[in-house]
Formats: sequence, C-alpha cells, structure tokens
Amino acid sequence: MGGLPYSPEELRARLDRAFNPRAVAVVGDKRANGYLWLNSMRTFQGPVYSVQIDPQEAAAIAAMGFANYASLRELPGPVDYVVCAVPRQVAPRIVADCAETGATAVALFTSGFAETEQEEGVRLQREIGDIARRSGLLLIGPNCMGIYSPAAGVRHSAEQEVYDDGRVAFISQSGTHCINFSLVGYLHGVRCSKTVSVGNCELLDIPDYLDYFLHDPATEVIAMYVEGPRDGRRFFQVLQEAARRKPVVVWKGGVTEPGARAVYSHTASLATAPQVWRAAMRQAGAIEADSLEETIDVVKALLYARPTTGRRMGLIAMTGGQSVVITDAFAREGLEVPRLSQRSYDRLASFFNIIGGSYRNPLDAGGTVAMGFAVDNVRRLLEVLDDDQNVDAIAFEVGTGFLVRRIRQDPALAESLADALARFRDGSAKALVTVVHPGHAEDVSAQIRARFVERGLPVFATFQQAARALRKAIDYWRFRQELE
Amino acid sequence: MGGLPYSPEELRARLDRAFNPRAVAVVGDKRANGYLWLNSMRTFQGPVYSVQIDPQEAAAIAAMGFANYASLRELPGPVDYVVCAVPRQVAPRIVADCAETGATAVALFTSGFAETEQEEGVRLQREIGDIARRSGLLLIGPNCMGIYSPAAGVRHSAEQEVYDDGRVAFISQSGTHCINFSLVGYLHGVRCSKTVSVGNCELLDIPDYLDYFLHDPATEVIAMYVEGPRDGRRFFQVLQEAARRKPVVVWKGGVTEPGARAVYSHTASLATAPQVWRAAMRQAGAIEADSLEETIDVVKALLYARPTTGRRMGLIAMTGGQSVVITDAFAREGLEVPRLSQRSYDRLASFFNIIGGSYRNPLDAGGTVAMGFAVDNVRRLLEVLDDDQNVDAIAFEVGTGFLVRRIRQDPALAESLADALARFRDGSAKALVTVVHPGHAEDVSAQIRARFVERGLPVFATFQQAARALRKAIDYWRFRQELE
Repeated sequence: MGGLPYSPEELRARLDRAFNPRAVAVVGDKRANGYLWLNSMRTFQGPVYSVQIDPQEAAAIAAMGFANYASLRELPGPVDYVVCAVPRQVAPRIVADCAETGATAVALFTSGFAETEQEEGVRLQREIGDIARRSGLLLIGPNCMGIYSPAAGVRHSAEQEVYDDGRVAFISQSGTHCINFSLVGYLHGVRCSKTVSVGNCELLDIPDYLDYFLHDPATEVIAMYVEGPRDGRRFFQVLQEAARRKPVVVWKGGVTEPGARAVYSHTASLATAPQVWRAAMRQAGAIEADSLEETIDVVKALLYARPTTGRRMGLIAMTGGQSVVITDAFAREGLEVPRLSQRSYDRLASFFNIIGGSYRNPLDAGGTVAMGFAVDNVRRLLEVLDDDQNVDAIAFEVGTGFLVRRIRQDPALAESLADALARFRDGSAKALVTVVHPGHAEDVSAQIRARFVERGLPVFATFQQAARALRKAIDYWRFRQELE
Repeated sequence: MGGLPYSPEELRARLDRAFNPRAVAVVGDKRANGYLWLNSMRTFQGPVYSVQIDPQEAAAIAAMGFANYASLRELPGPVDYVVCAVPRQVAPRIVADCAETGATAVALFTSGFAETEQEEGVRLQREIGDIARRSGLLLIGPNCMGIYSPAAGVRHSAEQEVYDDGRVAFISQSGTHCINFSLVGYLHGVRCSKTVSVGNCELLDIPDYLDYFLHDPATEVIAMYVEGPRDGRRFFQVLQEAARRKPVVVWKGGVTEPGARAVYSHTASLATAPQVWRAAMRQAGAIEADSLEETIDVVKALLYARPTTGRRMGLIAMTGGQSVVITDAFAREGLEVPRLSQRSYDRLASFFNIIGGSYRNPLDAGGTVAMGFAVDNVRRLLEVLDDDQNVDAIAFEVGTGFLVRRIRQDPALAESLADALARFRDGSAKALVTVVHPGHAEDVSAQIRARFVERGLPVFATFQQAARALRKAIDYWRFRQELE
C-alpha cells in the first residue's frame, strides 16, 4: 500500500472521509478551464473553499459566490478533500500545505509528471509522493480527475448528476472513461455509488480503492478501467478477494502491442502480456470487458437481471427476421435456446397468431402482440415462459416496427409496456433482459429506453450486447456458485 | 433460374422493368393493415391502381384518391409491378390474373405458405409457382415485402425516403431487415439503389437478384441478409462472379443450431453448416457481417472511405484514455498503429500541446485541438498524417468532451469541422473514418453525425465498429488486388 502508515481499516476510514468530506477546497481553478472544479462542486452541501492567488481569477471566483483564500493555511476550518489544479512546478508546495494543514486527501488534476516520460516530471511526481507518504496524506493521482461521490455532491464534471441510490463503483486510470462511465451509465440506468479517476497512482494504487469499495456498503458492483496497476501482485490478490464477494468488471486498456505503447504515454503504466492478464482475470473470477459500452452493459445485467446460473433462454422477438437474429446472437454466446415444454406449446396454441409467426422458441410474436391490446399479450407470452421448466432467462425485444409506431402516436403505451415488464420482473424468479434498438426512430427508442430505465429494467441496444452481457453475468454467478 | 423461359439478359431486363415500373397495382390492401401498400406507393410517379372487391374497403380506397377496380383484368393499362396482399387461398387466382394480363412481376405479401411447414401452405406455394413459371411472370416471394426502388418512388414502407442517388442494393430474406437496412442506413448515410425482400423464393431466387444488381449501373455495393438460398450451388457461383466486380456484404441468419431452427420456421430455408458457409464465403471473396449494424457499418466503409489495401493506421483521439482504447480497437482487428516518421514528429513538436497529450501515434490531441481555433488544428494534424509515408488510413474521433460541449453552444462548429474533414477527404489519397460516440449528449452527437453524413463522411458509433468495418473493407480491396 505504497508506504502509508495506516492499517487497512484506517485507510478505508480515511478514504471514506475523502468520499464524504466535511469541507472541500479547490486550489488553482481558473477561467481558462471554465472554472471546471468550482462549478463541479456547486452540488456539494458543505463549505467549498477556493485557493487562488491571481487577483483577477480571485475576483471572478468571489463573484461566482465562492470564498477565496490566498493559501490552504488560511482556510477557516478543516478540509477532507482538496482538488489541486495548479501548474506542476507549484504542486509540491500545495501538497506540502495539504499535509501541514491536516487535509485528509488531495487529488492532483495537475499533469506533466511521470506520464511525460521526462526527467523533470518523474522527479516532481516522486517529490509530491514523498511529501504525502511522510505525512499520511492520501494522494490521488497525479494526472487525474479525482473523485465523484454523487450522494455527497462531490463531482469532477458539472454535467454529472447527484443522487443517493447509486450502487456501482468505478475506478479508472482515465479521466475520460471515468466521467463517461457516470454520464453514459446514468442514461442507461447505471448509477454510481462513487467513482475515482486514479491517474498515475503515485501513492494510492488501484487495490487501495478496490479494497475500499469492497467494504463500502453502498457498492454492490465494482467496475474499473485499468491500464496497469503499479503493484501487480497486490492488485491480483485484492481483486481475487473482491470478486469472491462482489462482481468486479475489469476493462483493460493496452491489451495490444500498440495499445501498450499508448498506455505508457498516457499513465506511464507498464504492460502485462495479454495471455498472462487474461489468465489472472479468469483465476480471480473477474469479468472482462473490452469497451465502455460493454462495461456498462455487463454492469446493467449484473444490477438489473435476476442472478441466474442457468443458460436456457426463452426469446421473444417481433418479426421472423428478428427471431432468427436474436437466436443467433444468444446461441453465439454459448447460451441455449431450447424447445419449450408441450404444455407451453398447448397454451401458446390457444392464442398465438400463427400466420406470419411461430412459437417454438424463439417466439416470433409480432402478430400476437399486435392483436387486441398489445400489453396483455406481452404479459401472456411472458407468463408461459415463466412457467416453462426448460427456460432460465428471458429476452424481450421491442422491435423497430409497429410497437415503435404505436408508441410514437401514444406515448402512454411505453409506460404500460414498461409497467408490464417490471411487474413480470418483480414476480418472476427468472432473469429478464430487454432490447430496444435505436433503429431509425431514435427519439422514440430513447423514450422507450427511458421508461424502461426508470423501472430498473436492463435495456440493451442490440441483441449481441444483451446476449454478451447476460452471458458474462451468468458466468460470474456460476463462478460464485462454485465457491459455495 | 427456377424454370423461367428467359436468357440472363432477358431476365435482367424484366427485373429492371419491375424495379422501374410504368404502372403499379396493389391487390387486397385493407384498413386492418393501415393501407400499408397504397400509402407506400404514394411516392410513385406513374399510375397506382387498387384492386379490392370488398365494397367498404373499395370506398375507403377511392376516398384516399386511388382508382379502384374489381379485378386486374379491368385495369386501363399494362402494369409492371403488382403487390398482392390477399389471403393465401385467393393468391393463386390473383397470380393467374397477373399472368393473363401480362404483368411483368408480382410480389406476394401474402404469407402462410411453405414457411408454416403445413401441407396446405406448401401446396399453395407450389401452385402459384407453377402458374408463374408457365407464363414467365416474375414471382417475388411469397411471404415478402417485395421491392423498394427509391428513384422510382416504389416503396414497401411509408417511412422510406425517395431519392435518386442511392448506390447500395440490398437483398433480404427478412422484410424487417430489408426495411431496417433502408431506414437505419439512411440515417447513417447509406442510400439504396434498390432493395428487395425475397421471402420464400418460390421462383426468383437470391442469385437472380444478385445477378441483376451486379449488372445494375446504379449499384456500387451489394449487401444481403440470407437465411438459405434454394439453389446453393448457383448462389455461390453467382456470388463468386459478383464479388470479383462489386463488394458483396453477406449477413447470414441461422448460423447457430437454434438459429437454423428459427430460420426453418421463418422462410423454410435449410441450414448450411457454419464452417462450410464460412469457407464458401471466403472463397467467393464475399464480406461477412453478423448483424444489421455491422452490415451498415461495412457498407459505409466501402462507400465512403477511399479504397485502401494498406493496414497502417494514423489515429487521432481527444484524450489519453480514448487514445489507448482507439489503439486497442484497431490493433485488435489486425490493423497496425506504427510510429510516425521523424519529420512528422518534428512538425507535430512545433504546435502540439504536450502537457496532457502525446503524439507518437495515437495522437492524444484534445489539448491541441482545444487550443486556438479547433478546426485549424484538426486540419494541421490531418495534414501531418497525410504526408507521413508510414500511414495508409486515418481514424478521427470527435470525443465526448469539449468538442461536444462547444458544438452544443455553437452548432456552426459542427459544420466547419465536417467541412474540414470533407475537404481533407477530397484532397487525400488515404482512407478516412470518423467516430462519433452517442455518449451522454445523444442529441448533439446525432447533430454531428448528421453534418458528417451530409458530406459523405463515414461515421461510426464506436471505435470497435470503425475498426472492424474498415478492416473488412481493406480485406476486400486486398482480395480485389490479388485478382489483378
């Protein structure tokens, strides 16, 4: 743990204070950055202090309504979280001020350190690291966006939302991916308990954050974007411990040779051979993802589909062509699409519209759903699959045709469809995933997605994404089952 | 060719007449279908006749402004394209009328034939096939949506656009995929020369349409969704011939065992073993795709990125995290991300913002683009890559951060960015692809995409999609090169 004089319990307690600070300070925010940091902290409920010695900037900051000071030493009270945005030459002095005034943690937005691969940057990074290590100051970064703690109102982007029901923690060696995870995730129903952009990890390393989130009661799922932990052995050790208790989704950057070169320029991380990495992930029980989209998708499946270890899918699509493609997509991921029980076929025969449809599984159900009142027939189809012993999990696609056209005319239909699916989810022991293609009517699809997201339904943009995310969730729950 | 008494040239000429009809007839359109067919034909410039004997429907159709007749025999002039939407029992009589009145082609929207796997349906399909075969009538389907010919104004969905600059033909064994290809494709800049939903292929089979599009001057790229051609040998023969002269993208449905079952319920097609299929595709030089999204992506790359056989990418991303991920995405597809020439590094060093950025390739260019006037620096970066002998193709990402925020405030910036990219594309011999992530600001991203699409730039939603589509296009151009 990089040399801080804390027991694991003490470190967790101090990190908890940083994520739930009593007061926050921003050092060196400026017009050129659009006062990014002060604007981001507007949602923080406690005091937000600014430290800025440039008279013009100080005046502008005061005009924005923030109390500005010439030094951290002059603040009227203790500060648990400091964001430092000064030039790199000034950074050691600010970090020293943090240490001397007893701040709990400092995040250095400042870059130009080891990631430049230049002697000056490497030396300065070591210098600030040494100051923090000696004093027990939690140093986050440098070259990072620090923390986002939605329940505390601590943000690193003014576009982020605040809420107190987040359940996913995200650890990121990229500020962009950290912010995008929270912003894109929010749109897709993924709310964060906390996130942290970790930068160059001079002092606090990924396993420190991972251990904290493992013990954080608000965090049910942990995801991360990692380029290379500084202490690989400890990373795998903590990862292994964490994955046995909470799902951990790991998106690795720099898995290719040119990607590894890019990683070195970005965070000065050294590459691990892809085969070695993959084997370690598998052994640890971590869930691998390849992109932001896949990371969010897998988190959705983990959070919002009932945990299942069964691989037998019941599939509902709205046309014949989509029935084939949804089946290929799930089968390609190694999931099964079995025949249904005779009882199910008998029940389906009683109301299924067979002309232009079929119900052997997949259910080519457009004609049936279109008949009479759409939502009633959706409910009946789901009930048949729920009662069928051959089915473990269900995928439902909204399609791009008549349902979208009807919802465009009558938006309330999206509400009742979402209600029907949510009620089914509440009453069923089987995992349910939904597919809402953006299609050509992107505005209507976005509305449908929003109604589904409001009710905690996992929505995917393509069959492939739904299938892959659910398969990865199933693999994880099987891993957990084998531990028992 | 299923027994029609035509030479290949004659068949092509007759298909050309069906796709460019002098007059159109719709038989059996009705309120329950929302008068789908007549409404779809509103964009047709020539006469549209309705045939409907139900007095209530006939009155409604007349009120819609269409001339209605009791029989095809009563129409005032010759008809080249008939859409038949009558119940299946009536279908043989309508097909016989088509044959006797000398119609060029009939598409049967009517379903309930061989795809039901029931004797009655199989018998009826054979019956209409025999009538058409004997008379030389081009039978499309049954169980299909027929043709979409945007330049002629012939549509199979009232949501489809009409235009005369389409360059891609689509052949589909699914009506949904056929319509979605045209609608979603349009949003992404893919315009159709013609499409055809082929259904059960009782008479005209996929190779017939493929041969027609191969000889159609408006068609530069051919794509298809295929579940199983009736005559596999002939399909591969024509495919091989076509792929040597025009890119052919083949999306196969039913590549998995459960998918093959679904295919049989859908179009009564028999499955081919996946390994056999894949080997045949490779031998033919066809480009494989797995989904609607991938099919559209590959078509975009073929149409809008300059043909290249080189695999060495120059990559421009807006942040360090995205630089790593764009590099992994292209490298994972087998493309190279080489170091640049020393001359390029010298030129970049003169203006690149190195703090928080790097330019070894990938170019982590956000800081540089943000400096001064964004578009000027984009142009300079592109010029350096254009002049670099180590680079064959360029990928440019807009990012999800400051460019999106600035374009939200100033939409004209999207125009000038699109102009700069389009001017570069016009003046460079290198392939250019762009990535616009939907991100969290989906409205702004959609605007940016629209501006890029207007200028014929290929836009992809993720790095992975861009990389895969470009790689498949490169593979195809290499295949073509090897033929020479």
